[in-house]
Amino acid sequence: MKVGILTSGGDCPGINATIRGVCKAAVNHYGMEVYGIRNGFRGLLDDDIVRLDNNSLTGLLNLGGTILGTSRVKPFKRRGSGAFSEDKPAILLQTIKDHQLDCIVCIGGNGTQKTAARLAEMGVNVVGIPKTIDNDVWGTDVSFGFDSAVSIATDAIDRLHSTASSHQRVMVIEVMGHKAGWIALYSGMAGGGDIILLPEIPYDMHRIGDAIIDRLKRGKPYSIVVVAEGIQTLGGKKAAQYIAEEIEYETGFETRETVLGYIQRGGAPTAYDRNLATRMGGHAVDLIAQGRFGKMVALRGDSIDSVALSEVAGKLKLVTEEHDLVVQGRHMGICFG
Amino acid sequence: MKVGILTSGGDCPGINATIRGVCKAAVNHYGMEVYGIRNGFRGLLDDDIVRLDNNSLTGLLNLGGTILGTSRVKPFKRRGSGAFSEDKPAILLQTIKDHQLDCIVCIGGNGTQKTAARLAEMGVNVVGIPKTIDNDVWGTDVSFGFDSAVSIATDAIDRLHSTASSHQRVMVIEVMGHKAGWIALYSGMAGGGDIILLPEIPYDMHRIGDAIIDRLKRGKPYSIVVVAEGIQTLGGKKAAQYIAEEIEYETGFETRETVLGYIQRGGAPTAYDRNLATRMGGHAVDLIAQGRFGKMVALRGDSIDSVALSEVAGKLKLVTEEHDLVVQGRHMGICFG
Amino acid sequence: MKVGILTSGGDCPGINATIRGVCKAAVNHYGMEVYGIRNGFRGLLDDDIVRLDNNSLTGLLNLGGTILGTSRVKPFKRRGSGAFSEDKPAILLQTIKDHQLDCIVCIGGNGTQKTAARLAEMGVNVVGIPKTIDNDVWGTDVSFGFDSAVSIATDAIDRLHSTASSHQRVMVIEVMGHKAGWIALYSGMAGGGDIILLPEIPYDMHRIGDAIIDRLKRGKPYSIVVVAEGIQTLGGKKAAQYIAEEIEYETGFETRETVLGYIQRGGAPTAYDRNLATRMGGHAVDLIAQGRFGKMVALRGDSIDSVALSEVAGKLKLVTEEHDLVVQGRHMGICFG
Amino acid sequence: MKVGILTSGGDCPGINATIRGVCKAAVNHYGMEVYGIRNGFRGLLDDDIVRLDNNSLTGLLNLGGTILGTSRVKPFKRRGSGAFSEDKPAILLQTIKDHQLDCIVCIGGNGTQKTAARLAEMGVNVVGIPKTIDNDVWGTDVSFGFDSAVSIATDAIDRLHSTASSHQRVMVIEVMGHKAGWIALYSGMAGGGDIILLPEIPYDMHRIGDAIIDRLKRGKPYSIVVVAEGIQTLGGKKAAQYIAEEIEYETGFETRETVLGYIQRGGAPTAYDRNLATRMGGHAVDLIAQGRFGKMVALRGDSIDSVALSEVAGKLKLVTEEHDLVVQGRHMGICFG
Repeated sequence: MKVGILTSGGDCPGINATIRGVCKAAVNHYGMEVYGIRNGFRGLLDDDIVRLDNNSLTGLLNLGGTILGTSRVKPFKRRGSGAFSEDKPAILLQTIKDHQLDCIVCIGGNGTQKTAARLAEMGVNVVGIPKTIDNDVWGTDVSFGFDSAVSIATDAIDRLHSTASSHQRVMVIEVMGHKAGWIALYSGMAGGGDIILLPEIPYDMHRIGDAIIDRLKRGKPYSIVVVAEGIQTLGGKKAAQYIAEEIEYETGFETRETVLGYIQRGGAPTAYDRNLATRMGGHAVDLIAQGRFGKMVALRGDSIDSVALSEVAGKLKLVTEEHDLVVQGRHMGICFG
Repeated sequence: MKVGILTSGGDCPGINATIRGVCKAAVNHYGMEVYGIRNGFRGLLDDDIVRLDNNSLTGLLNLGGTILGTSRVKPFKRRGSGAFSEDKPAILLQTIKDHQLDCIVCIGGNGTQKTAARLAEMGVNVVGIPKTIDNDVWGTDVSFGFDSAVSIATDAIDRLHSTASSHQRVMVIEVMGHKAGWIALYSGMAGGGDIILLPEIPYDMHRIGDAIIDRLKRGKPYSIVVVAEGIQTLGGKKAAQYIAEEIEYETGFETRETVLGYIQRGGAPTAYDRNLATRMGGHAVDLIAQGRFGKMVALRGDSIDSVALSEVAGKLKLVTEEHDLVVQGRHMGICFG
Repeated sequence: MKVGILTSGGDCPGINATIRGVCKAAVNHYGMEVYGIRNGFRGLLDDDIVRLDNNSLTGLLNLGGTILGTSRVKPFKRRGSGAFSEDKPAILLQTIKDHQLDCIVCIGGNGTQKTAARLAEMGVNVVGIPKTIDNDVWGTDVSFGFDSAVSIATDAIDRLHSTASSHQRVMVIEVMGHKAGWIALYSGMAGGGDIILLPEIPYDMHRIGDAIIDRLKRGKPYSIVVVAEGIQTLGGKKAAQYIAEEIEYETGFETRETVLGYIQRGGAPTAYDRNLATRMGGHAVDLIAQGRFGKMVALRGDSIDSVALSEVAGKLKLVTEEHDLVVQGRHMGICFG
Repeated sequence: MKVGILTSGGDCPGINATIRGVCKAAVNHYGMEVYGIRNGFRGLLDDDIVRLDNNSLTGLLNLGGTILGTSRVKPFKRRGSGAFSEDKPAILLQTIKDHQLDCIVCIGGNGTQKTAARLAEMGVNVVGIPKTIDNDVWGTDVSFGFDSAVSIATDAIDRLHSTASSHQRVMVIEVMGHKAGWIALYSGMAGGGDIILLPEIPYDMHRIGDAIIDRLKRGKPYSIVVVAEGIQTLGGKKAAQYIAEEIEYETGFETRETVLGYIQRGGAPTAYDRNLATRMGGHAVDLIAQGRFGKMVALRGDSIDSVALSEVAGKLKLVTEEHDLVVQGRHMGICFG
């Protein structure tokens, strides 16, 4: 049995731990061969494929990024006139055939799982593994990378409290999350944010201003505001800048912004993410051994399960008002906008 | 509504975040009053109770330990002749009555939840919140404190790799876990342990020796061994010391031991634990508001729920051979003894 | 003996440790009284002064920010017409007299030490303690706060390596340092930056482009660029944005920027900074006890000494081409522009 | 020019950064060839030598341990009858000759520098670089590895405060340091230890007991005690265990001990140590280029310098009562025994 493995989309802590998990389980337990496809789907177009063995795996458990490289190449994306970017799917299939790969493990976020679903439709044996710091892949309770990103963002918010209270300022911090506000919600709550703005929940600048003034009245002349990058703004402004300017206008408070950026996706994964990655990687190989293709590995409660790729494709897991961290946040006096 | 709150048993990261969560939700949302009972159940015997308000809560989210203090006092424990340590339960009830506490939130591990169940049987309105780094409280998927302890232990194991490989040694590290091996399992897997010994899985020194020799043959003349403190040993020896001596005897490898000890339970909780603590604290107050007593708050999958204290009391959640981290660990070549 | 203490300018890790050091040494050893002046020199204008005792000091050693608050108020700064902002110095002196303060400890950066020197000229007993993450106070080898800022920045740069290598990108990170490039130099070297740009060393975009292309030729299709916020740019652009745009233009490489911002100055100080802060705080009190005023505490080699405030005022400690970290960096192939 | 490099004695954070520094400066700037001698001086006896080039250096800056391996082999140590372990020095010289190594860089602690001095006496071109977490190498203000060890120990002490205050206990923590108490002093002071015991300062159990009782009287019914492993004990007991037992006996306080152990020497070096390692590595190559052999690189104040190996050999840098961290500690009420 020859297993191809690729990593696609934005890098994220835990990818290497997953690659390690897949390889170790496949090679040691099932006696399979594993081939690394470089730079996501581009490696299938470029025929850039390398054999992975146990020696390739040293030090991978806590190494950030992906040793296979990644890209955002989408082989099924239509271009310009609406016609398929002609032969890409055919090239893909040919490469898989040439290397006699019996199946492909696709590690990636929503875009990757969508492509994986298309590959499955074309008859390729595919197993998906969800990977995203944004935690917005539908069908799994949690994706690895998320806990690491939340940890880094929480640590940053912890640090901002020093400056906020010492200088009596409002500090606005922008964290990742274009469509889904999971990082903002979890890091905002863990970091003791006073105001947390998510793409999923509309906000009102007056209410935000009132929340800040209200804290002043209770003897706290400073506030921490955590915003997801994907919240709506006016004039095409970036989230943190827009909110900071509006807060200064509304309240007269000195307000400063920080955009956390790429450090949220780099570095060693947390212990939580390493284990989630290992469990998911191993489970993917179990699915392969059982011939259960067209599935995405998923965390359900406390155990690892799987879900049909066709069900996942095109969906997005978003924060809702009913999520208990939102509900409890409101009870505790957090302003969600 | 007057709510009493106490923390009992070993300290653990996230207790203060829970106290904060209970207070903020109770005071801000439900307009309840919250009273801190000091030093666990001893505070009910000593009548040591203080009012908690919003000002008491600054800085609690990421503060280790418990501001209420804790003790291992078990008011229902029979002494000597088998007779009840006479009046303790009566004193408890009287203190609760004197302070007109409508209910008691008991934050603690298995022993605490058992006592909470007894209090409930006696007619006290009780809500339990599970707290233990050991993760062995029955009825909840995870207890807060566990993720923090695993993070600390994983960080320590990461560090031991340097010495193991530089000196070509076997490094044995002992982590907490008397009856349950959850910390050893999760930190051992996350830290890249080669051999992981849990109280729940019997081990064989020959197989361990073989695993170490086998690594040598594959070009890795060093190994990391993670042991729970509660594994069986001979001659009353401590876990790490016993295993280290036996490994030297079996393999002739230079072997060194480290006992991680109390640093596993101290310091700031991880973001994961802070949010779990906040959600559980808030949910406890929801239960109180709904008059649903005799319950322990529990994490079930991705949401917070509750379970009857009578179901929890006296049970222990242990690692089983079927746990997928054990299964995947074996697939990847980890020796579990 | 009554000692006043104030903290002025930007907040920085280790200020609270210094306050603790001053208080403990003054109260316990010398039997002095210590008074905290709130919000920097503004507290002397507003008469906002509180007694500090041992109970005020719990938890200060590793707490970020400053419990006394800070401001950038400069009481000797001329306004508009060039006239002194009339009575401010007189108000200051009156407040000091009213509270019978025998001396003032001024914890701050270059601006603060300049004001302290002016106060000394006016006859106030002053002792300065240098505090700045920028490390640009003249007269001391190191200021506390610097090591913490470098640690945070280095950790961030470590994380960017993941994304740089996985996506084959150039990652530009902007760290603090308006006039002095110490943070960029130390974090850039510690974080494995390939190109490090400081305000003190002119750069040439062609040489930078060549360095990146040269790395590509040696099989490294990615680079890490560390820039101080104070480097010269065109069009009023911010450092990271400008450099990222220019690199994309020069090399065609996909380039991304991160501005680290305020997290560099917040949170718990490193062990190094805590000890430096403690030593400096204690030494300040020794100077007071010996009646040696008009001095700033300074680290010289391995020991704590002092320097006349009049010597320090108005000077800036900058990176030079001869600094051995620059020299060794060049030897190792780092491009400094 | 052919440069041999070896690492000897206990592993320590920053060794790999030094190797990287030596190689990069030697190869890129001076056009030298660098050869890694494996497992300390054993590699010269076993003829175990590998060429190092730029590709060997990826990821070394923040990697713990030593990629060259280490051992405690002392080729000049007399055995049994007092006779030299016959030919070892001769074998050493022959290996150096066979490989045409023009000089040897010896990275290690006191023992290593002593051996290096002997090699120099025999006519070998030697440059030493001090490496020890213990900071006891004479002739340099600081050795790399020390700051990392202090950081790890301080982090551990920070964590113990949680348990100490929550359970009202005395917590004793044992850190490394057989003869020199630098780690205990610096981590004890940075971690807020109440009692700090060093091998260099005799202690009295009554005074320690009094200090603990005294804290109780001031409302602090708990204490943190930091002890170096090398303090004198009775009955051959380990430092922490002995002190914990004696404190329980003297005060009746519940006392718990933790032995920090090997985690102090593993893992990624701090930014401080990485830069110190880089600077020292680069300076060693400068010395070689200048033909200045028989020297050990040394930090003096803020700059890198060197000292004759003959001066260093056999000496030990110890803590004295006059060290200002001891003096200030006493002023602040710390009990040093």
